[in-house]
Amino acid sequence: MKLVPLGDRVVLKQLVAEETTKSGIVLPGQSKEKPQQAEVIAVGPGGVVDGKEVEMHVKEGQQVIYSKYAGTEVELDEESYIIVRQSDILAVIE
Amino acid sequence: MKLVPLGDRVVLKQLVAEETTKSGIVLPGQSKEKPQQAEVIAVGPGGVVDGKEVEMHVKEGQQVIYSKYAGTEVELDEESYIIVRQSDILAVIE
Amino acid sequence: MKLVPLGDRVVLKQLVAEETTKSGIVLPGQSKEKPQQAEVIAVGPGGVVDGKEVEMHVKEGQQVIYSKYAGTEVELDEESYIIVRQSDILAVIE
Amino acid sequence: MKLVPLGDRVVLKQLVAEETTKSGIVLPGQSKEKPQQAEVIAVGPGGVVDGKEVEMHVKEGQQVIYSKYAGTEVELDEESYIIVRQSDILAVIE
Amino acid sequence: MKLVPLGDRVVLKQLVAEETTKSGIVLPGQSKEKPQQAEVIAVGPGGVVDGKEVEMHVKEGQQVIYSKYAGTEVELDEESYIIVRQSDILAVIE
Amino acid sequence: MKLVPLGDRVVLKQLVAEETTKSGIVLPGQSKEKPQQAEVIAVGPGGVVDGKEVEMHVKEGQQVIYSKYAGTEVELDEESYIIVRQSDILAVIE
Amino acid sequence: MKLVPLGDRVVLKQLVAEETTKSGIVLPGQSKEKPQQAEVIAVGPGGVVDGKEVEMHVKEGQQVIYSKYAGTEVELDEESYIIVRQSDILAVIE
Repeated sequence: MKLVPLGDRVVLKQLVAEETTKSGIVLPGQSKEKPQQAEVIAVGPGGVVDGKEVEMHVKEGQQVIYSKYAGTEVELDEESYIIVRQSDILAVIE
Repeated sequence: MKLVPLGDRVVLKQLVAEETTKSGIVLPGQSKEKPQQAEVIAVGPGGVVDGKEVEMHVKEGQQVIYSKYAGTEVELDEESYIIVRQSDILAVIE
Repeated sequence: MKLVPLGDRVVLKQLVAEETTKSGIVLPGQSKEKPQQAEVIAVGPGGVVDGKEVEMHVKEGQQVIYSKYAGTEVELDEESYIIVRQSDILAVIE
Repeated sequence: MKLVPLGDRVVLKQLVAEETTKSGIVLPGQSKEKPQQAEVIAVGPGGVVDGKEVEMHVKEGQQVIYSKYAGTEVELDEESYIIVRQSDILAVIE
Repeated sequence: MKLVPLGDRVVLKQLVAEETTKSGIVLPGQSKEKPQQAEVIAVGPGGVVDGKEVEMHVKEGQQVIYSKYAGTEVELDEESYIIVRQSDILAVIE
Repeated sequence: MKLVPLGDRVVLKQLVAEETTKSGIVLPGQSKEKPQQAEVIAVGPGGVVDGKEVEMHVKEGQQVIYSKYAGTEVELDEESYIIVRQSDILAVIE
Repeated sequence: MKLVPLGDRVVLKQLVAEETTKSGIVLPGQSKEKPQQAEVIAVGPGGVVDGKEVEMHVKEGQQVIYSKYAGTEVELDEESYIIVRQSDILAVIE
């Protein structure tokens, strides 16, 4: 099962900060979310949204900063995602 | 009796999670709603909505994620439905 | 006296549920309103409304679902009506 | 002195219900207002209002239903009027 | 010093009711404001306002009714004025 | 250092009322602000602002009345300025 | 890692006032933020934003005044940035 966004929607997965002990061991159980940083999971087709032509500029796999108060949290197959409009994505991290 | 939505409206029926006991027996009586997941029951014709041309992209039978705070609950023949605008549907589940 | 709606307005009359006793006798005195279900009494001419061309899609006599929080209650000749914009009508019941 | 409305404004005068005793005597002193029912006193010229071309559809002398929360009460020569936009007039009573 | 309004702004001066004693003496000291009635003092040039072409329809010297909650009170040379947009003027008194 | 406003912004400096004692001595230390009166310090280039073509009509050095609740107070080199959109300037004082 | 803003977004870094002791020694540890003054770090490509063509007028390295209540604070690599729309930048400091 996968999420196929409509219009200018983008499916994001919040990034989790890896915490590494001094000895170099990654401790995934102690992970914490990086606020507003997310990976692009799926990108809608764009097209006419609310009467305006929207071209999509983000791509799957990109890491992005998105607006704190935007988006809808969605749970699917016990994974949680955030669905935002592309206009709620502020910047790409390169 | 059936609901024929106008304009860009879409009639949804919320999905109910099947709960299965360990022995494999489905217990429909203990069903609970899957938040924001719904099946598309009927799709409006689109056309000019609020002065803007809207093309419909969802189809009957599709499973979709819709915006938590959108839509109007409607009861017909003791079944309950949610009527949303297509723009309140965030993604299709495939 | 009758109400002739302007622009994209539609005059509705809320539907009343007939309650029938087990013996089959209809008890109109115990009627209760069906929420959001109404009959279309009169339909405005459409045309340019708020700078946008509106085409009317509902017809007199149709049963419709309308948005709970929309419309203005109006009393005329001791009958009460609801006047809504066509865009507040969500679906036709067929 | 008279009120000449600008743009899409309409000057209304609220209707007063005549109350008649059983013997047929009209008691104007006990008059009460008919909510939202008014007579059209004067109609603005229409034209471009807020960047949109507005055509006027109501006429002097018509009885109309107007939106409860719309309009500005105005007093002139000890008579009180309501000035509304034409779009706040819901229906004509015929 | 005078106020030259910009765009679709209009400078108004609120009208004051003359109170006359029975003997015919005007008592200006007991004057009180006529709510919402004002004289047009100066009219802006109109033109493109907020992206929309606005034509001015009121003229200096006219008495007008303006919207109760509109406008900005301004003091200049110890006289007080109200500056409104033309669209806040509801009607001309003739 | 100077402020160069963008788009339809205008940099204003609030006017201070000169207070003069009876003997004709100006007391700048007891100055108080004239509410909403300001001098134009710098004018943005106009152009397309929020999708609409804006032409600038105010000029450096003009005294203007601006809307009480508009604008952003800004401090630069220990002087304080107000930056407003041109549409928040109501009138020029001539 | 760097932030590449989308559309009409601009990445800003708030300016910090250098405090110098009388003896001329800069004390960076006692730095404090200059409110609303920031340096432009990165500028989005502009283009069609919300259905309107936006041309970018600010450049990397410029010092600008931005609107107090605008923008989203973002942390990346332990540096904090503010991402605003270009329309929230009021003026360039030259």
